[in-house]
Amino acid sequence: MVLFRRLLGDVLRSRRIEQGRTLRQLCADARVSLGYMSEIERGQKEASSELLASICAALDAPLSEILSEVSDAVALEEARIGLRLAEEIGLEVPSEVPGELSGHTGDDVVPSAA
Amino acid sequence: MVLFRRLLGDVLRSRRIEQGRTLRQLCADARVSLGYMSEIERGQKEASSELLASICAALDAPLSEILSEVSDAVALEEARIGLRLAEEIGLEVPSEVPGELSGHTGDDVVPSAA
Repeated sequence: MVLFRRLLGDVLRSRRIEQGRTLRQLCADARVSLGYMSEIERGQKEASSELLASICAALDAPLSEILSEVSDAVALEEARIGLRLAEEIGLEVPSEVPGELSGHTGDDVVPSAA
Repeated sequence: MVLFRRLLGDVLRSRRIEQGRTLRQLCADARVSLGYMSEIERGQKEASSELLASICAALDAPLSEILSEVSDAVALEEARIGLRLAEEIGLEVPSEVPGELSGHTGDDVVPSAA
């Protein structure tokens, strides 16, 4: 099951780290406790809509942009789950599936003769 | 403040109505109480990530698709708020702003001399 709060947490943490800010700095701006924000970033707690708006404001990121990123991350995970299910029931998975989707690192891919 | 749960509720209700289903039918499939689901659709209660996944499954809609629609609705509301703020501080708002964005119905628009 793809959980919204887990991928939301990933996106929020990525944004904060991209901005070179500590959890402590963000929490002061968003007026949320360090422990709570840490749990949100790890996808362990749901953020209320008011808190989410406040975190977005502190990150100087429109909510629409954050949701769009979460939507993309969810779509990728849905595709991964679809692939895994297809493999489990023995469906042929096309070999040109990108490594990012199939979970391959690329290290185990045998180069094709070009 | 743009609240995620309000626009999520709008999107979930639109989907259900498009499918010609009653609240009662959806609640049975998503295993959620009628009162709670009704509050979620009206944006009065937050849905947990587990419940959101369950509602999406009952609507036969990928979570990524629902989130993408919510993101679009949030973006539209952010733009509306931006326009309103610009008007309040006396900034000239371009007349070619689409009616949907500015909240005009078009009835009150004076045609410009082309």
